[in-house]
Amino acid sequence: MSDPSLLVVPLGGLGEFGMNMLAFRSGDDIVVVDAGLMFPESELLGVDVVLPDIAYLKQNREHVRGILLTHGHEDHLGALPYLISDLDVPIYGTRFTLALLRKKLQESGHLETAVLRDMQPGTAFPLGAFEIEPIQVTHSTLDCVALAIRTPVGVILHTGDFKMDPTPIDNHPFDLHAFARYGQEGVLALFSDSTNAERAGYTPSERAVRPLMESLVRGAPRRVIVSCFATSIHRIQVVVDVAHSLGRKVGFVGRSMVDNVEIAHGLEKLHIPDGMVVRQQDLRGFDPTKLVVLASGSQAEAMSSLSRMAVDNHRHVSIEENDTVILSARIIPGNERAISRMIDHLFRRRALVYYEAAASGGTGPVHVSGHASQEELKLLVNLVRPKYFVPIHGEYRQLFRHAALAHQVGTVSGEILLLEDGQTLELSKTGAVRREPVTAGRVCVDSGSLEEIEEIVIRDRKHLSEDGIVVPIIAIDKHSGRTEGLPEVVSRGFLSTDDGQAVLDGAREVVRRTIDGSNAEEKMDWSVIKEKIRVDLKRYLNKQTSKRPLILPVILEV
Amino acid sequence: MSDPSLLVVPLGGLGEFGMNMLAFRSGDDIVVVDAGLMFPESELLGVDVVLPDIAYLKQNREHVRGILLTHGHEDHLGALPYLISDLDVPIYGTRFTLALLRKKLQESGHLETAVLRDMQPGTAFPLGAFEIEPIQVTHSTLDCVALAIRTPVGVILHTGDFKMDPTPIDNHPFDLHAFARYGQEGVLALFSDSTNAERAGYTPSERAVRPLMESLVRGAPRRVIVSCFATSIHRIQVVVDVAHSLGRKVGFVGRSMVDNVEIAHGLEKLHIPDGMVVRQQDLRGFDPTKLVVLASGSQAEAMSSLSRMAVDNHRHVSIEENDTVILSARIIPGNERAISRMIDHLFRRRALVYYEAAASGGTGPVHVSGHASQEELKLLVNLVRPKYFVPIHGEYRQLFRHAALAHQVGTVSGEILLLEDGQTLELSKTGAVRREPVTAGRVCVDSGSLEEIEEIVIRDRKHLSEDGIVVPIIAIDKHSGRTEGLPEVVSRGFLSTDDGQAVLDGAREVVRRTIDGSNAEEKMDWSVIKEKIRVDLKRYLNKQTSKRPLILPVILEV
Repeated sequence: MSDPSLLVVPLGGLGEFGMNMLAFRSGDDIVVVDAGLMFPESELLGVDVVLPDIAYLKQNREHVRGILLTHGHEDHLGALPYLISDLDVPIYGTRFTLALLRKKLQESGHLETAVLRDMQPGTAFPLGAFEIEPIQVTHSTLDCVALAIRTPVGVILHTGDFKMDPTPIDNHPFDLHAFARYGQEGVLALFSDSTNAERAGYTPSERAVRPLMESLVRGAPRRVIVSCFATSIHRIQVVVDVAHSLGRKVGFVGRSMVDNVEIAHGLEKLHIPDGMVVRQQDLRGFDPTKLVVLASGSQAEAMSSLSRMAVDNHRHVSIEENDTVILSARIIPGNERAISRMIDHLFRRRALVYYEAAASGGTGPVHVSGHASQEELKLLVNLVRPKYFVPIHGEYRQLFRHAALAHQVGTVSGEILLLEDGQTLELSKTGAVRREPVTAGRVCVDSGSLEEIEEIVIRDRKHLSEDGIVVPIIAIDKHSGRTEGLPEVVSRGFLSTDDGQAVLDGAREVVRRTIDGSNAEEKMDWSVIKEKIRVDLKRYLNKQTSKRPLILPVILEV
Repeated sequence: MSDPSLLVVPLGGLGEFGMNMLAFRSGDDIVVVDAGLMFPESELLGVDVVLPDIAYLKQNREHVRGILLTHGHEDHLGALPYLISDLDVPIYGTRFTLALLRKKLQESGHLETAVLRDMQPGTAFPLGAFEIEPIQVTHSTLDCVALAIRTPVGVILHTGDFKMDPTPIDNHPFDLHAFARYGQEGVLALFSDSTNAERAGYTPSERAVRPLMESLVRGAPRRVIVSCFATSIHRIQVVVDVAHSLGRKVGFVGRSMVDNVEIAHGLEKLHIPDGMVVRQQDLRGFDPTKLVVLASGSQAEAMSSLSRMAVDNHRHVSIEENDTVILSARIIPGNERAISRMIDHLFRRRALVYYEAAASGGTGPVHVSGHASQEELKLLVNLVRPKYFVPIHGEYRQLFRHAALAHQVGTVSGEILLLEDGQTLELSKTGAVRREPVTAGRVCVDSGSLEEIEEIVIRDRKHLSEDGIVVPIIAIDKHSGRTEGLPEVVSRGFLSTDDGQAVLDGAREVVRRTIDGSNAEEKMDWSVIKEKIRVDLKRYLNKQTSKRPLILPVILEV
């Protein structure tokens, strides 16, 4: 019998921001950590969400013992509604995480069949060849855990997303002792969150936003609107506390905000004094000097509450002069321009707008990150002093810089390894060896239809979006095989009507000449004649217009 | 005779980043300050550059006395090659500015006919009803000026782009005395650069980048590649000086880098010791420990030198392990993802990459801004103490915050006015009055063809880019008027081939039914039958796929 080993299989989030998913395999047992989604870059035209490719897990379906969720953010569990029908295995999470997941699975129609299992920090449980101990960590949402996974070759630690908040809002601290204990025992490999590996120093505590929040609400001449991520329950708690201490009531707007507040409140993880909540339909008439509104839409998502308010298109809230608007969230890369436009609109309505780039009056930040900065990352490496170190959760440059930090610390006794999605690694007594890569990648989904979109379709859309489309159409008599009439050429997104007509007339002539210049054999083989037309038209159109529209020849049998 | 007045006509750059253009009119005399372009947001599909709409100037062509250029950045003069045929008036600029412009006009074929006139800081000249005095200011490129414009109702000051660099690289200081002198005399209105109005404190001197640059080059194990804007001659001078002091030679790559270095060197505004330049074709073989390469492409523009190097597709430079790459430029909003991907590629090639977000080893910044921060902006308001204050150059939120700063200073004796493009303002003895707006806006240009792109074409492209296109084609016998054969339906960018075929087969059936269900009159009116097909297909496709492709029915007469 061969020595036991552990195969590390990164399926998402190593080399990109989002869609985190990492699998571990020992013998015939696989556990998966997280199943996140990614919001697409604008280059992925018409794509709503991006998921990790789970071909590897589908091929090994019968070996997958479960999915372990570290916390409830979209980039850690958002792919489940799309993947669960292909991967119907038990899902483990903490209370708040599972509560968020239940809501999602209910909406996607998978709740009935899903097997959801509660896990708690400090309580270990077996899963196939593994034993799992969730470890309490601090982050920007509730009930976050790291995972200690005891495998046949040793203990590995997966941090999930974390920072080391010394003064968490909910007083549930980062469990330094658990990490210390495993460090003492000996850790085979540490997989650690690289999101803020470029950031020097320490990430401030969630409490750091309170002073500025308090001073802004205290000084606000009228209504205050605070926008943050709907999962940022700590932030919401701070706003509720500040409002309460200053004699203001709170209103919640936006579906995700209302849903999550309800869930967290139901679990007694968000504390709202009785009688403090103003119903949405009562917000419009409520004394603006006595009100704080919590709204979703900090990323200026189209149709979100704050985006609607900014253009005065929200049912319950209109921004008026001297309303205070606080954007208490980071700007997710890619959203800069949309957020900037939203802020412009808010200023145009004469709101007093506070945001990360330019908020501070010296009293502190309006937002703090939920991810550990360099000093915390180094501390963790020192605490765990693993044999192998693998940075996870980040674009390549963040993984690279996290690896450099670990080198600098010097307490990794074996190797520091940079892996990207699909690049597997085998750990055993004899060492760490890179193994054959597995299929990994991005699956693009149009969420309206829950369907995957193929690469070729996206490439076509990109092409279409740049220079439009030109469709030459030739009618061929199915009896005689002869072309009927003049070819037709239509276009969209190519040239405006005026300039375009002459060019398209010329294009008809080009197609006619191409057909006339082809011999009978070519005319019989439609794929040949289509390609000839495509090539000739491409040359003609590029010369006439310097453009390269997508050309789609059609032959019609009549 | 009526009292004289001055009409302020903002045509670009007030409420957006880029395409700066501001006109002043007194009686029948108009002067225009700057004529910049803007690089498009990614929403403007297939658009290469965006220009200000100059309808107002075209209508008043015979009154336009000249265009005054404050400096040579694209957002201040880049529109001229596109606009000059409609606005062939004298163009005034300083030496370096005109040298850059000449290059552009040569490329666009307008140099022969253009009338370019030199202007110098401190030397006033008349222009219609105005007298113009250029004032030397400091910024990130050479030969920048503010403009004092003496009008029949008083002196106005236009800052251009500026910061107050106390220790400029070329020792040409910001002319505080000129601003003080005008402040003493009395200034009717100050128009001031708002780009950094959100930034607290002072912008560091251009010299501030030298310590880190020096320490990075000194410590570099191999070749150093520095990328900055090709117009940043001060930055290029610093890099040349550092390389020289450390015994390294320099190479220049990228067309704009090579061109601008040549221009600045020819004007004796960039000093390069003899024998220090390595020719492009010799870079590959040159001792990497003795070389610094200056490359354009800091914004990760497609096909730029640095982008090509990052993917090992540059003719003269391949990035190798332990090469040092320094991105010495800001990230222009909208370019974040492209730059981030480029940095990832550089790290994958094992380069040591330094960039703004994460460069510092405590020795200083790798890039400093060329625009004044809040303390400098306030100082200028105090120095000029104008009657009216109008923030220019910025998105709305930046103009708004600049106005707030001026309020805070309190030395504006009259009004602080927020204008956006097209919103005119009349200044006279009796006060400042908002007048009828004029046409202003963005003109989108596909630079390959130098042609304007119509709104409808961009809308179509956007639509195409989201859900693709479906083209139903019906052949109609031109003699009988009957449809021939089954309708054809083709698509691109819509569904992948496998899923798509069944849907398209269904679509053919839908079209057939629509035709069969139409009466003879409808069949004769092609626009009616096309619209019926479009509506029926739209409903069918949306139901089948939840998508809304662009539907382009074609009727072919055979």
